[in-house]
Amino acid sequence: MRWVRYAADGKETYGILEGQDIVEVEGDPFAGYGKTATRRKLDGVKLLVPVWPRTFYAAGLNYADHVIAAASKRGEVPKLPEAADIGYRANNALIAQGEPIVIPKDATERVQYEGEIAVVIGKHAKNLTEANALACVLGYTIGNDVSERTWQGGDRTLWRAKNSDTFKPMGPWIETDLDLDKAMTIVRVNGQEKIRFATNSMIFGIAHFLARMSRYVTLHPGDVVWMGTEGVTENIKHGDVCEIEITGIGVLRNPVVRERQ
Amino acid sequence: MRWVRYAADGKETYGILEGQDIVEVEGDPFAGYGKTATRRKLDGVKLLVPVWPRTFYAAGLNYADHVIAAASKRGEVPKLPEAADIGYRANNALIAQGEPIVIPKDATERVQYEGEIAVVIGKHAKNLTEANALACVLGYTIGNDVSERTWQGGDRTLWRAKNSDTFKPMGPWIETDLDLDKAMTIVRVNGQEKIRFATNSMIFGIAHFLARMSRYVTLHPGDVVWMGTEGVTENIKHGDVCEIEITGIGVLRNPVVRERQ
Repeated sequence: MRWVRYAADGKETYGILEGQDIVEVEGDPFAGYGKTATRRKLDGVKLLVPVWPRTFYAAGLNYADHVIAAASKRGEVPKLPEAADIGYRANNALIAQGEPIVIPKDATERVQYEGEIAVVIGKHAKNLTEANALACVLGYTIGNDVSERTWQGGDRTLWRAKNSDTFKPMGPWIETDLDLDKAMTIVRVNGQEKIRFATNSMIFGIAHFLARMSRYVTLHPGDVVWMGTEGVTENIKHGDVCEIEITGIGVLRNPVVRERQ
Repeated sequence: MRWVRYAADGKETYGILEGQDIVEVEGDPFAGYGKTATRRKLDGVKLLVPVWPRTFYAAGLNYADHVIAAASKRGEVPKLPEAADIGYRANNALIAQGEPIVIPKDATERVQYEGEIAVVIGKHAKNLTEANALACVLGYTIGNDVSERTWQGGDRTLWRAKNSDTFKPMGPWIETDLDLDKAMTIVRVNGQEKIRFATNSMIFGIAHFLARMSRYVTLHPGDVVWMGTEGVTENIKHGDVCEIEITGIGVLRNPVVRERQ
């Protein structure tokens, strides 16, 4: 099942995507819902960020080649993370399908995409085991963890490097039925494929992260956990269109513009 | 004016505190409100976290003696922050006035308080100047940035060190009329004063932080910004009661318990 969140007729609503049609619901996928008689065309609505998380988690370094490539660029010996220590991103930066990634006017040219799977929590959960962890998951969506590498290297925190307004595209919808082991993540810029990797080839898997996190933190319905990206990333610039596809979910597509001087 | 958020008669509501009485409102201090005819006694309601932030910001290192003391404990040369780089805390960890700080069963004894002023944003804001920054502030409340120092030193991120469930007491209410330059922050454990410092003696002041942040991020109504703590902090343990007072706001009081084995 695919959950879409959208604006139409002046209100923001959840619906269930069936082909190119949306079945509008009352309520939401977290607290409960009922189908209504309203049907809409997907291309007739404005898609919204599929959920505003209560807490926005991000794994950061969680694919081996990405860690090795980043260390190599800095001339350092790569150090793989030794434990599933979760990090955070910020809600101000979230944008939806089709909305522009705006590069701040004083950013360097080193603004880069990171294609990631995003786990959407559906139920309150504490003290999960790896065996039962995925039962709290509602579904999966796609994130683009846009990063300004100069700020990432120089600032004391990741605030503007990772969380400048518009730096966190998420969508286009939540897919509840995904075969993680078959999913491939593909990044394209202006239609040209930049990287393709097995989505589930993580250093620490989703169940491991959720089990470890929930030893200390309660997961809440609507929380999201971005799982990190793989490989070498490249710069994106004004005029580009960046697409993150995860097979079985869909394509998150955002144009790139640079803030005017 | 003091804004309280509380539970009574099975619902969660905002009200205005007048002495020991609450004037209940419809709406909230961010989107707008109207006073109702309902009056309640402060000691007859359950106080709630005064606002659930959309983004929960925290300055981290922002008072000189605290930075120097922490470096000294690690045997390092203190390095004061060179720029107002904001960090984050997580909503899962928020608790209200009177609720227990629960130390995870595998935490060390090095769990410590940090008394902080918390800025509550009232209006959307972008590209503020230091001169106009405080105009977006609704008011101020109090935070206790509880920290497990062993995890803080060893984990790759601050997730469980700073954001284990219950590690972020915030309250008791939002004070809209505060003379920042007169405010004193006082920490007491079991009634014994541990530290007292001028709340506004920050390395980077509130207006400077908000101006710099808002160059890159839009501040939203209900966002909170915790401004850091001063001095040496000490351990708290099962059975303690930790109080953070900021003169002109009030007292945030929470008991401490250790999770059962």
